[in-house]
Amino acid sequence: MFITFNRVRLDDTDAAGILFFANQFRFVHDALDDFFDADGHSFNKMLFEYGFIFVIVRAESDYLAPLTVGDNLEIHVMVEKIGTTSFIMLYNIYKSDDHSLVGTSKTVHVCLDRVERTKLTIPDLYRSLLGKHTFAGQ
Amino acid sequence: MFITFNRVRLDDTDAAGILFFANQFRFVHDALDDFFDADGHSFNKMLFEYGFIFVIVRAESDYLAPLTVGDNLEIHVMVEKIGTTSFIMLYNIYKSDDHSLVGTSKTVHVCLDRVERTKLTIPDLYRSLLGKHTFAGQ
Amino acid sequence: MFITFNRVRLDDTDAAGILFFANQFRFVHDALDDFFDADGHSFNKMLFEYGFIFVIVRAESDYLAPLTVGDNLEIHVMVEKIGTTSFIMLYNIYKSDDHSLVGTSKTVHVCLDRVERTKLTIPDLYRSLLGKHTFAGQ
Amino acid sequence: MFITFNRVRLDDTDAAGILFFANQFRFVHDALDDFFDADGHSFNKMLFEYGFIFVIVRAESDYLAPLTVGDNLEIHVMVEKIGTTSFIMLYNIYKSDDHSLVGTSKTVHVCLDRVERTKLTIPDLYRSLLGKHTFAGQ
Repeated sequence: MFITFNRVRLDDTDAAGILFFANQFRFVHDALDDFFDADGHSFNKMLFEYGFIFVIVRAESDYLAPLTVGDNLEIHVMVEKIGTTSFIMLYNIYKSDDHSLVGTSKTVHVCLDRVERTKLTIPDLYRSLLGKHTFAGQ
Repeated sequence: MFITFNRVRLDDTDAAGILFFANQFRFVHDALDDFFDADGHSFNKMLFEYGFIFVIVRAESDYLAPLTVGDNLEIHVMVEKIGTTSFIMLYNIYKSDDHSLVGTSKTVHVCLDRVERTKLTIPDLYRSLLGKHTFAGQ
Repeated sequence: MFITFNRVRLDDTDAAGILFFANQFRFVHDALDDFFDADGHSFNKMLFEYGFIFVIVRAESDYLAPLTVGDNLEIHVMVEKIGTTSFIMLYNIYKSDDHSLVGTSKTVHVCLDRVERTKLTIPDLYRSLLGKHTFAGQ
Repeated sequence: MFITFNRVRLDDTDAAGILFFANQFRFVHDALDDFFDADGHSFNKMLFEYGFIFVIVRAESDYLAPLTVGDNLEIHVMVEKIGTTSFIMLYNIYKSDDHSLVGTSKTVHVCLDRVERTKLTIPDLYRSLLGKHTFAGQ
């Protein structure tokens, strides 16, 4: 499991006074950026140096409690499953002050050739990085 | 079924050259705004005139084809289910040029008292509006 | 002058109940997308077919009245100045219901080679398109 | 002067491969959140406990160098001027790796009664907090 942090900003909320639901997906994707970056394999490298991309084909979120501006978040990033050409990430979001679980998300990623957009086997470097954070590997 | 339109803007895309996945949720929520507004019951009234809000407790999207800047979209909005205090919306997103299905989403809404944040029975006005767009009611 | 339309969506507002200021810049940039698209020269073509991009080097906005969810907007797009390698766009934003001016923006664009990122003379096609919307050309 | 940090995320960029210009305004506003929060006066308190808000009436940005996904930023926050009912903030944005100045912004804020939307004298608490970060006070 990998842990990172974020904060609900004014522009993440809406006129209902709470987090606009789509922004939870931004938080978990930022957490995924931190997850890969922690091992030196940033999105930047993926986009501009490597020949593949991880495209999201499915995303889900559950919202357990309202969040508002200034809430500090602790985000736990886990790998649910690694297949040949795809993998599934899970995220638990906690409020930092009372450690209550406020939301969960899941994203399903497929590895594609950057130019041809055909499915690729997940490169070994990323397979081994992801393997460190599966439930079994925790 | 209710139909509305949108367009993928430059800021909806990211450096991978395609729609950032979380923005599909913005598109379907904008479609829901149009859906309610078409019957004269805008989010604005809900927020500032009525005593309740519809909070999203779950959201899902599938991504079937990459979208990029300038793609015009046709969004079909349907009501999957109406319960006592909650309802489920479905969205199909088509590219306007070839009518191909490029994405689907689902949002689950709970009706809450705006101040107390306790569950409320969906007001009759909205129940009847939603009822017009259920699968059976189409 | 070119006229286009937009609408303040829930996610454009924040917990203060009004438009988050940065989103006015999204509105005017979406208007610029419509401006170029109306003549068949979309951002899409610029990005993926042509060898240049228009990079924004300066942006300004004034906010004259608060906007909130459901406000329909009429956006007037004008060209203030066309130089050799740069041009300046002006935008007036009006509420559709009472035609009151609620905001103004300015963006300064420089034409760059897409790969080398060096300044380029604005291509004739775009120079002539922009020329149709200068103050003199109105 | 107050210093805080941020990072360009994938969703901050667009299909041109660089930061979408409006998102620099989000970065500097997040920096302002950190600025107030460092003294225990978060936006949250302003919105939900105090009777006033600081509304932005003007915003400007200059863009000196392209930013892309994964760029770490150091943001310097300064107070340019404090008036009776308004104040002006300045922001310098540096890339963390080479300390090059990549952008500057300015925001002009007016203190309003939260309900009446009439101008208010800046509360002493905030006047003194802002005073610590004027050029003279640095």
